[in-house]
Amino acid sequence: MSDVRSITIIGAGLVGSLASIYLARRGYDVKVFEKRPDMRDKSIDGGRSINLALSNRGWWPLKEVGLEHKVNEMVIPMQGRMMHDTSGILTFQRYGQEGQAINSISRAGLNALLMTEAERAGAEIYFNCSIEHVDFERNVIHYTEGGNKKEHVTGILMGSDGAFSMVRKFMQVTDRFNYSQYYIEHGYKELTIPAGEDGRFRLEKNALHIWPRGNYMLIALPNQDASFTCTLFLPFEGERSFEQLATDADILDFFKQDFPDALEQMPALLEDFHHNPTSSLVTVKCYPWVKNKTLILGDASHAIVPFYGQGMNSGFEDCRVLNALLDAHKDNWERVLPEFQQLRKPDADAISDLALRNFIEMRDLVADENFLLRKKIEAKLQELYPGLWIPLYSMVTFQEELRYSEALRQGQRQQKIMDKVMEMPSIADRWQSLDFQAIVDELKD
Amino acid sequence: MSDVRSITIIGAGLVGSLASIYLARRGYDVKVFEKRPDMRDKSIDGGRSINLALSNRGWWPLKEVGLEHKVNEMVIPMQGRMMHDTSGILTFQRYGQEGQAINSISRAGLNALLMTEAERAGAEIYFNCSIEHVDFERNVIHYTEGGNKKEHVTGILMGSDGAFSMVRKFMQVTDRFNYSQYYIEHGYKELTIPAGEDGRFRLEKNALHIWPRGNYMLIALPNQDASFTCTLFLPFEGERSFEQLATDADILDFFKQDFPDALEQMPALLEDFHHNPTSSLVTVKCYPWVKNKTLILGDASHAIVPFYGQGMNSGFEDCRVLNALLDAHKDNWERVLPEFQQLRKPDADAISDLALRNFIEMRDLVADENFLLRKKIEAKLQELYPGLWIPLYSMVTFQEELRYSEALRQGQRQQKIMDKVMEMPSIADRWQSLDFQAIVDELKD
Repeated sequence: MSDVRSITIIGAGLVGSLASIYLARRGYDVKVFEKRPDMRDKSIDGGRSINLALSNRGWWPLKEVGLEHKVNEMVIPMQGRMMHDTSGILTFQRYGQEGQAINSISRAGLNALLMTEAERAGAEIYFNCSIEHVDFERNVIHYTEGGNKKEHVTGILMGSDGAFSMVRKFMQVTDRFNYSQYYIEHGYKELTIPAGEDGRFRLEKNALHIWPRGNYMLIALPNQDASFTCTLFLPFEGERSFEQLATDADILDFFKQDFPDALEQMPALLEDFHHNPTSSLVTVKCYPWVKNKTLILGDASHAIVPFYGQGMNSGFEDCRVLNALLDAHKDNWERVLPEFQQLRKPDADAISDLALRNFIEMRDLVADENFLLRKKIEAKLQELYPGLWIPLYSMVTFQEELRYSEALRQGQRQQKIMDKVMEMPSIADRWQSLDFQAIVDELKD
Repeated sequence: MSDVRSITIIGAGLVGSLASIYLARRGYDVKVFEKRPDMRDKSIDGGRSINLALSNRGWWPLKEVGLEHKVNEMVIPMQGRMMHDTSGILTFQRYGQEGQAINSISRAGLNALLMTEAERAGAEIYFNCSIEHVDFERNVIHYTEGGNKKEHVTGILMGSDGAFSMVRKFMQVTDRFNYSQYYIEHGYKELTIPAGEDGRFRLEKNALHIWPRGNYMLIALPNQDASFTCTLFLPFEGERSFEQLATDADILDFFKQDFPDALEQMPALLEDFHHNPTSSLVTVKCYPWVKNKTLILGDASHAIVPFYGQGMNSGFEDCRVLNALLDAHKDNWERVLPEFQQLRKPDADAISDLALRNFIEMRDLVADENFLLRKKIEAKLQELYPGLWIPLYSMVTFQEELRYSEALRQGQRQQKIMDKVMEMPSIADRWQSLDFQAIVDELKD
């Protein structure tokens, strides 16, 4: 397989486009098959465009392919969480240390940039091409383009076709393919806080806003047009659920009671609510990721829930790691493919589990006194011992050289230590006089 | 849905055939679509026919449909496990109490009987019909029969089409369908111990033979023609694995070392080994099992590994429970379908997990001194307090009125108590003088 020249990528989404930049630059003949029409032909609808949180793991590969400056112009840094309680009182909590931030960015805008860059690097993107079948033995893709059946032979095939990947679908029916898809009980609906009349942001611009309400929450991320894209995460069924929000009165009552300050900023709430779909949230795990000369990556092999803001970042990290392995093994795909999946699978599993857990933290714990105190103590530990104690959120979000699986492991050790600290009598009053050195020393055991 | 008249069942395997007997007897117009040709047209190959272990949960529904006597003529009772060590020393371990046994039966023979009985009850079985698509909204099945595309509308649709169910495959792509398929690292291969020259059984007839060897094992179940069907369970890869058994010498060496007494009884070992496939073992879990008017049951909704001998038994129990709910709700399917899945899902999950765990017990613990002692103490407890302490294996296998989920729960409580008992110093010497009353009393907490 070291004589591979042609690579076919299924899906020109964020991960497929970034992978095609790396691979075209390595000199491969890269073809990308995308099911949808070219998104760059349409004006991008700012209101409905989902925004994502780009953080260090995503930045690294973007820098490697030289897109740092262009992307920089597209982002709004968010230094922390702004929590809104039911009476409208705000609490700000930094994500990391001074200068550290996650970055709100439009999915559509970033995807368009990556596609254009991929083409500039020599990749060819074929739009309106739907995969019908994959033959893993002969490395043939059967697809339709405008209703016409076609086939295409390739050296290496990569499926970066998302959580509902067709490439994976054909892997799934091969022997000994482990697979799970698991939906959480919550759905989500996108809503909008438009720009203020004077073109200003109606809420603090450089923050991710959260209205944590126990079993559910509303969040808002800033857009460059001074609007916010809000997402309501709510169970599909049950006492407080989408099912219960049947009439306009139901919706308005719910927002009045739970999100009164957000409601004031949402003139088009009812319109948005009825117009936008209620979507589900899935976690996909599978293994192997490689079948002969086919590899799946990004959401296709590890779709996760959005609560750690790591879906795109982990997919971009896949691309960076793949490129590094190609460097290390001089493009010997026979070594790269198995090593890639062995290396990345534990990291994908780690961020998958972390993302599920972070939903509980976001919707619930962020409004909890004990949780806030724990964060304060951890921040103090980090301040005193910067290289030794790094809160889990920071390891995942800002320590791009640390593997997700290592971050999880270290986080678990720290959690055990902090659990003990939090059990100390009247910890709320006396936390400042804790023996911080002794706490950090426990990490050495 | 209380005016349902027509029911279509996909798959005329064991579960589909039993379900069609129940439903045809209730007066429904039952059609069964089976992918394969009619197995009754061919002579049934005794050697290659897998045999199954029929136990109480399977007997109950067979009795309900009046097949007790016919099936009784087809079985060989196995009262316990006969363990073979590497020097050929045998240890017998009863499965339950006097008169309790599990029953070796040929899958093909039982399936043929059930099909014939289903037709007698009025069900129509259409062979060589492959499902191409299921429309859950309109309750339409698209299928091919001898290359011709056809469609069929039905009142209720049931998928009993096995671990690789097509009906489930179409459910899987609907929103919010949770699904997992998980393969264990072991494969299996069927082998044969033929009848002795005088037509006698070469090993003890009324036992399930096990050659437990730590990470792998060989088992043998008796057939009515005095042969035994053996199954070798072995990892696909690794030190002792199918991968390592490449040549005739490899195979013979392996058997000589690990299964010398079995090897003596296997004149066609090499032929069997090369001819029979190495198959994989999958656990499938999913939810929901109902989509509009379609229900999946048996392996289609809960395929399990074979190590508790409960795959067929749990599928038959599905049929019995479904029939009982139809009785209880006067054939109101709108109530029966949701109640069936809510009731059965925890039981399917329980037996699924138990089956995975029992592999470890079979291949490993049965040869362990401590395990045998634990079994002895539990048997004593059952003897002294028959209604109060029932070993987990007995609850699962012989207590057909106890739900699997309850058996698992009760088993976990007993395990905790037994763990403590086994920790007592010199328990091996003094177990007969234990305070058994005190042990049983712990169950009351």
